[in-house]
Amino acid sequence: MSLDSLKADLVFAEDLAEAARDCARSRFRAGLQADNKDAGGFDPVTEADRAIEARLRALIENRYPMDAVLGEEGGHTQGTSGRTWVLDPIDGTRAFIAGVPTWTVLISLTTQDHGPVLSVIDQPHIGERFCAIAHDGHLQAELVHEARRRALTTRSTKHLKDALAATTDPYLFKGAEADAFEAVRGRVRLMRFGLDAYAYAMIAAGGLDLVVESELQPWDIAALVPVVRGAGGVVTDWRGRDTFETGQVVAAATAALHREALDVLRPAAR
Amino acid sequence: MSLDSLKADLVFAEDLAEAARDCARSRFRAGLQADNKDAGGFDPVTEADRAIEARLRALIENRYPMDAVLGEEGGHTQGTSGRTWVLDPIDGTRAFIAGVPTWTVLISLTTQDHGPVLSVIDQPHIGERFCAIAHDGHLQAELVHEARRRALTTRSTKHLKDALAATTDPYLFKGAEADAFEAVRGRVRLMRFGLDAYAYAMIAAGGLDLVVESELQPWDIAALVPVVRGAGGVVTDWRGRDTFETGQVVAAATAALHREALDVLRPAAR
Repeated sequence: MSLDSLKADLVFAEDLAEAARDCARSRFRAGLQADNKDAGGFDPVTEADRAIEARLRALIENRYPMDAVLGEEGGHTQGTSGRTWVLDPIDGTRAFIAGVPTWTVLISLTTQDHGPVLSVIDQPHIGERFCAIAHDGHLQAELVHEARRRALTTRSTKHLKDALAATTDPYLFKGAEADAFEAVRGRVRLMRFGLDAYAYAMIAAGGLDLVVESELQPWDIAALVPVVRGAGGVVTDWRGRDTFETGQVVAAATAALHREALDVLRPAAR
Repeated sequence: MSLDSLKADLVFAEDLAEAARDCARSRFRAGLQADNKDAGGFDPVTEADRAIEARLRALIENRYPMDAVLGEEGGHTQGTSGRTWVLDPIDGTRAFIAGVPTWTVLISLTTQDHGPVLSVIDQPHIGERFCAIAHDGHLQAELVHEARRRALTTRSTKHLKDALAATTDPYLFKGAEADAFEAVRGRVRLMRFGLDAYAYAMIAAGGLDLVVESELQPWDIAALVPVVRGAGGVVTDWRGRDTFETGQVVAAATAALHREALDVLRPAAR
């Protein structure tokens, strides 16, 4: 993929994010009742989720009918181009229903050969859009906010003891994972909770240094990768691999910090 | 205090919040280095903290020279009016340094006889201002956002099993408090973390139903009380008292939910 075509695709991804904004904003704090799609736990699906994904799927099909689409709500739609648009219309549905604007709209383009190459993490209520390309040596990550666009770079933190870290839910870790997480928590300077994809955007923005998570789904992960890498960070699974089938993700501001975190997490890696 | 004078004081409190905004916004995500004022733990004080409090103290002294001021940074300045302005220039300093816009500026007016009677919880980056009066039967809470002002009302949730709850840091609870918190966490529908005062604003906004915290300081608490009560909620210490010297706070969307939470928390009340 040429840089020019990647940049054109990122413009399209930003158009998709723009199309999702009104849809999301009008429903945020509007007294939504969350459905319960998992009788065993609590997994709210809002009207906004479904409306946004349907809208984005229509726009993608119109512009790139050969591309596949993978979305949290609508599943996988086959394509023939080797490219897949991965959508999570509302990442952080728990934050959304609680009225807390750290939920985001996740849009990314992945290719068969290279994985996620570009993405947008958009927060419609705050009006923040994190846009990134990470492919074949071209790395860029930008924050668009209040009509300004600025390049993002991760912090230079190299050691766990200095790291500002985050995970969405500390109670999600079980067994060996819980032990590994506790070991990380005990060594970092600070641990934040409840941020979902916004935490990875904060690594890119130079706010956080480290995010450690498990149980993530493909549509949760794809958009995070270009944003972290585009800003100079490192993101892999808990074994240090570029594939994320295990749902275990570790993202860090620097390669040195990533190595320190991996040393602690690897015993619990799947 | 007459309603007219309360309303005039709330306008002044909003002026103070406005004066803090630029100060806070210009320093947010600006590569601040946090000081460490507690050698034993992690308690960052930012330049923004000090600059905002100094500015607000000067404005209060100019307008109401007889009023006392209690601020996190500058301590207690005596007055002769029986009124105290309570300031927390940046509540949620950990969120602030991590780049996450759930920190807030807290401003409240308390009186010797009635405690906190009005307050503002302001989020400068998002541009959200929660303004409230709760005194002598007059209850009001409003959200000002994007030049619109709307009245806030808590949700009608009556039972823990239906409650969306929050606490800033689950690891702050020790001993009996930790047991009580775990009992609440096990009974609610959802528990969010890391929101500081923003969580109480979300009770007023009808997003969250319950907040359970401990170890809060007077400047953390004063601004929360009118915002929760003004929107129809209930906030007390863990024994159900209006005084908050213990630093244990429970805020709920309804009286019924508050009673259920108190039943669980009381064994650990100080």
